[in-house]
Amino acid sequence: MTVSPPQAPYVCAELYAQIQQFYSRQMNLLDGSAADPVAWSQTFTEDAVLGSNFQETPDTGRAAILKSMRDALAHISAQGTGDFRHWLAMIDVQPQPDGTLRTRYYGLAMATPEGGSLKIRGHVLCRDELVRRAGRWLVRRRHLEADGVPA
Amino acid sequence: MTVSPPQAPYVCAELYAQIQQFYSRQMNLLDGSAADPVAWSQTFTEDAVLGSNFQETPDTGRAAILKSMRDALAHISAQGTGDFRHWLAMIDVQPQPDGTLRTRYYGLAMATPEGGSLKIRGHVLCRDELVRRAGRWLVRRRHLEADGVPA
Amino acid sequence: MTVSPPQAPYVCAELYAQIQQFYSRQMNLLDGSAADPVAWSQTFTEDAVLGSNFQETPDTGRAAILKSMRDALAHISAQGTGDFRHWLAMIDVQPQPDGTLRTRYYGLAMATPEGGSLKIRGHVLCRDELVRRAGRWLVRRRHLEADGVPA
Repeated sequence: MTVSPPQAPYVCAELYAQIQQFYSRQMNLLDGSAADPVAWSQTFTEDAVLGSNFQETPDTGRAAILKSMRDALAHISAQGTGDFRHWLAMIDVQPQPDGTLRTRYYGLAMATPEGGSLKIRGHVLCRDELVRRAGRWLVRRRHLEADGVPA
Repeated sequence: MTVSPPQAPYVCAELYAQIQQFYSRQMNLLDGSAADPVAWSQTFTEDAVLGSNFQETPDTGRAAILKSMRDALAHISAQGTGDFRHWLAMIDVQPQPDGTLRTRYYGLAMATPEGGSLKIRGHVLCRDELVRRAGRWLVRRRHLEADGVPA
Repeated sequence: MTVSPPQAPYVCAELYAQIQQFYSRQMNLLDGSAADPVAWSQTFTEDAVLGSNFQETPDTGRAAILKSMRDALAHISAQGTGDFRHWLAMIDVQPQPDGTLRTRYYGLAMATPEGGSLKIRGHVLCRDELVRRAGRWLVRRRHLEADGVPA
């Protein structure tokens, strides 16, 4: 999605609070010693697509998304970067005529090694397509654009 | 505005969600390759005043605010500091008897040069006076107080 | 509290906005030149308990919590670390059957010395038990888990 113009209507508080909670919980499932990649992957639809400007081809399907995340977590663990945290904020929500949502938000990844200092790993511009299933939001499409990656 | 005391009433969710969306979108219009300073300036009233502890005199009027921001963006671009991002959070909203709002929030400015690492540029305490026009919030007065600036 | 599973219901917007405002204001009372430790301590119940993985024993009671915070602020001031700021985000709220709330959120502490650069001091995983008193939320129990602290 593109940036909302100044005159775009605001979404209602119930929807905005749901999306804020969705992202808080999704990231909580990924971070720290309580990380649960399987539960995290269940916040994506079965046919979800996750692409970025730092990988060659997007991951298609929940199983592929889970595998990529497990590989990333193993890589992070092997490097000893320590407790990983993801912060998401500056959320903009654009409802679509078909009931899906387009969202645009910022992400910060940071980690603190044991006995060491926190290091910010990078900033990502995130764009999602969310769908509602059984009263919960799920990601059907995600595109991550890390800052500073040469085009 | 001063800090809200512990017993201050909470503003309703609709208002709080509107203000969160207002700031997300306002900053989205300023950041990254999609930056649109003209659209950003339209989130201020025609007679808005923007002052800070890091400039001699405040900018008065939308045109002056736009010119200062364009100068700042050109300066940032010339320095090669890379993709710029503004995060705003910790928003406190105090409705006024005349229907305007006073807000107080924190801002973090950060940038990532191409191929380089993210650098936090600084922290700012922000105070706004917001007015409602045609169903949208606009900034009528903003004061920015950057941390670490000698008094 | 543990991490909310993907299928956990969202809390309503009114509650979520109240909690966001509660934390914004609580931290505003602690930060910068306007810091007011006494008012900050009044956001805890008289019998509140505050523990962490970076102190030997928890503080029990509002007076003990206030004393610890005053000691910490004096220590920070003596070190010349400058304007201190706390950011809280990624809030998850789990209502309990007895009307109390369990919350889980992330905190970042940062400071900017006069004339110097901002330094992130550390990341904390925070877990609270909140109770409602006279229309306001208060902390009855808080546990802070700083990242990178050897177990």
